[in-house]
Amino acid sequence: MTGAVELSGGTAGPDALRPLIAEVLAGLAAGAARRAGPIAPGEPDEIAAAVRGALAEARGPSALGRLAELLAYGAADPADPHCAAHLHCPPLAVAVAADLAVSALNPSQDSWDQAPAATVLERELLAELAETVGFDPDRAAGVLTSGGTESNLMGLMLARDQRLGREVELNGLPSGVRPRILASEAAHFSVQRAAALLGLGERAVRAVRVDRHLRMEPDALAEAFAEAGWEGATPVAVVATAGTTDTGAIDPLPAVADLAARHGAWLHVDAAYGGGALFSERLAPLLTGIERADSVSLDWHKLGWQPAAAGVFLVREDHTYASLARRAVYLNPADDEQAGYPSLLGRSLRTTRRPDAFKLAATLRVLGRDGLGELVDRCHHSALRAAELVREKPELELHCDPVLTTVVFRYRSADPARADHVNAELRRLLLRTGRAVVGRTELPGHGPGRVRLKLTLLNPHTTEAQLAALLRAVVEAGRATEGRTAEG
Amino acid sequence: MTGAVELSGGTAGPDALRPLIAEVLAGLAAGAARRAGPIAPGEPDEIAAAVRGALAEARGPSALGRLAELLAYGAADPADPHCAAHLHCPPLAVAVAADLAVSALNPSQDSWDQAPAATVLERELLAELAETVGFDPDRAAGVLTSGGTESNLMGLMLARDQRLGREVELNGLPSGVRPRILASEAAHFSVQRAAALLGLGERAVRAVRVDRHLRMEPDALAEAFAEAGWEGATPVAVVATAGTTDTGAIDPLPAVADLAARHGAWLHVDAAYGGGALFSERLAPLLTGIERADSVSLDWHKLGWQPAAAGVFLVREDHTYASLARRAVYLNPADDEQAGYPSLLGRSLRTTRRPDAFKLAATLRVLGRDGLGELVDRCHHSALRAAELVREKPELELHCDPVLTTVVFRYRSADPARADHVNAELRRLLLRTGRAVVGRTELPGHGPGRVRLKLTLLNPHTTEAQLAALLRAVVEAGRATEGRTAEG
Repeated sequence: MTGAVELSGGTAGPDALRPLIAEVLAGLAAGAARRAGPIAPGEPDEIAAAVRGALAEARGPSALGRLAELLAYGAADPADPHCAAHLHCPPLAVAVAADLAVSALNPSQDSWDQAPAATVLERELLAELAETVGFDPDRAAGVLTSGGTESNLMGLMLARDQRLGREVELNGLPSGVRPRILASEAAHFSVQRAAALLGLGERAVRAVRVDRHLRMEPDALAEAFAEAGWEGATPVAVVATAGTTDTGAIDPLPAVADLAARHGAWLHVDAAYGGGALFSERLAPLLTGIERADSVSLDWHKLGWQPAAAGVFLVREDHTYASLARRAVYLNPADDEQAGYPSLLGRSLRTTRRPDAFKLAATLRVLGRDGLGELVDRCHHSALRAAELVREKPELELHCDPVLTTVVFRYRSADPARADHVNAELRRLLLRTGRAVVGRTELPGHGPGRVRLKLTLLNPHTTEAQLAALLRAVVEAGRATEGRTAEG
Repeated sequence: MTGAVELSGGTAGPDALRPLIAEVLAGLAAGAARRAGPIAPGEPDEIAAAVRGALAEARGPSALGRLAELLAYGAADPADPHCAAHLHCPPLAVAVAADLAVSALNPSQDSWDQAPAATVLERELLAELAETVGFDPDRAAGVLTSGGTESNLMGLMLARDQRLGREVELNGLPSGVRPRILASEAAHFSVQRAAALLGLGERAVRAVRVDRHLRMEPDALAEAFAEAGWEGATPVAVVATAGTTDTGAIDPLPAVADLAARHGAWLHVDAAYGGGALFSERLAPLLTGIERADSVSLDWHKLGWQPAAAGVFLVREDHTYASLARRAVYLNPADDEQAGYPSLLGRSLRTTRRPDAFKLAATLRVLGRDGLGELVDRCHHSALRAAELVREKPELELHCDPVLTTVVFRYRSADPARADHVNAELRRLLLRTGRAVVGRTELPGHGPGRVRLKLTLLNPHTTEAQLAALLRAVVEAGRATEGRTAEG
């Protein structure tokens, strides 16, 4: 067991890691070769059986390489151009290599004396990102998060505690208050989850009507505020989305900011997806108005090519970031802070916290902001080209023009009543045959006819020929499904 | 920029990673050598200036190695035997290498088609861990978390929604209800944070008296239940701690479970620290009663030698795990689930989620449970030996016998009125001189005389000679501080 218990840190760590990493990389290469596509073919049960078998048998030093191979074989690999379902990016090798340094040293950001350099580094990165958003970096504050869901929760927590009074933290929600959160119909489901978690209840969230592009309609938002007024509800927050998961729609931020300001509601901008556009000269103007937000969600494991997690939560004004302040005598005693030892404990919902800032800081230094912006532009261009290809195919129907890097469309079924079934089924056929991993979603509303397919194009190296092949695969799967379901 | 934008996945990923990882490992080795100890000497400002300088200057391909060196230089490295402050473990090289596979492939567990193998693997690992806790793996359920803080939040969220009614999720907290959470004075501060976040308010948490070893007193818990009854409060949950952060105290779980059952309160056991003892034949009996918990927190980035994060949340009965169920049409549509595609979305507070299960599964396969148990025993033995060494030194005063792997003590000040200051100051002196990273905490209660030093011994390779040297450094720093403060 001696070799197996070597540590990754210290001066000996790198030598201990070298042979183990070689095994992992060999396993990854073998698994990718065996998979030979975006996903391993087969039913979910078949992949499950392979995993169970390997877990039961792998023992001892050889288990590491074997399990790495299994993980690669059983991956849906976003580095394959035919894996284009979700906001699930293929990471940059440089970001992955940087993340290794974090794993090896295991700094934890709940106290300075677990992460001296990482503590400063996170603050510096956040100041850079605050400036990118258009906040004054000397007044802004933030933290790295596990993603948009956690960032949205934090924004709504601060909104709750600012708008209903800091007493909420001590005494819980005051009785008789009817909090209201306004978000578009196309906002992320994590807004409702956050409302439930925060004790406000899901029904505190009112869905504001969207246009065909799934952008919030300002008139509808004004109506929702008026309705809250009649009903005696307290408008706690508006959540504007800058890049909805499906169409990449960006709510009209200046109009939403005006309305939020008029009604004294906290403005949270969920730019988990769209935030990446801030690095692109061409696309950044789409986010004009984001600088008026009280808080913002950004995710660099989406349009930022970082391995998960690389979420960021920012507030425009540091003083609004009060809800999490705690004095833990073993982590941030007052006399240590007076002696100049900074603490990030009050920034995060977590205690132990891996410095996810490091990989993004390293990526920004190696590629530069322009380098990241170029990757955003390439993926945006892919989406525009894919939309043209969809338009050219009579079998396919485009939902709307791409805004960021997604394309929403469907296979036209001969029998419109079966369209939802055919589209859902053809997607599973592509999965089962290992040909493609394509997204599936539903347009907002009720009733049939809302199922759509989606390409989320996050691979900057995808070529036009690969896009064409991907859409051919969709059409072929559509025909095969249509044939089968017509018979069945 | 071509090389810089290579991806980590696919068949080409391993080749792209190899040279970058070589740079990172060289940077880590250089940084550790330059640090030459548990932490870089200097004031926090000096380390901050070094980080700011490197961030300002590092550009282009060489930035990766330079920043890795900086992170290592500016780390508090738990692989150094003189870094022993926190529940901040030195990771095993095998776990770090396994984590690299996860970063490279970037699976995300919010849908099957982003993580086919990882989805099954997490379930299998959770079943194994449920069995280790003493739960019936066919009835239990769980999820990987970012750590004890998130796991405690999840336990209290489920307790709230089970005890106050599922309506809470929809409509928020009912008015007139006065929820009560009972936890010991030595319970983790995240219990209060969770109560505030959940809209219950911090004051819903009542601190139950502890004995000298910081174990909850069952009589005091019975009184707290009686008090809740008189006051018309609803006892929502009891949080028992299995391994407090400071003394490693384990609350009397069978007695606490009896009381919780009698009063219909949810029992959450925070075994974030103590859970590791389950792998040790010698120590596992300390946790008898944990199998009666409704929910449990376990952290394998503490006594499990995983890089953060490797938290686990488990419930004994799957059906109680309902609060997070959501149907997101782009992630877990009903027809996909009917077709056999499993979804873990309803298990986690997060959406995007890195498969932290993989590194622990790999570690368990390479070392075996017994291998991990042996590491736990070695650290426990270190703590026992360190406590003896403290007892042998007239300058030091032991607080109580170690339970797990921590030793709480203090430097005896000639002037008892200055003891708190001397102990806090000597710890900072050890940090500034780069000699040692020692913990500091305060015993529960009020008034002066409660500051203590703490060794958290998580390095299984630490020798007795290293422990003796560490305690000598503490005594020398105490003398130097005492001399200086007596003059000052």
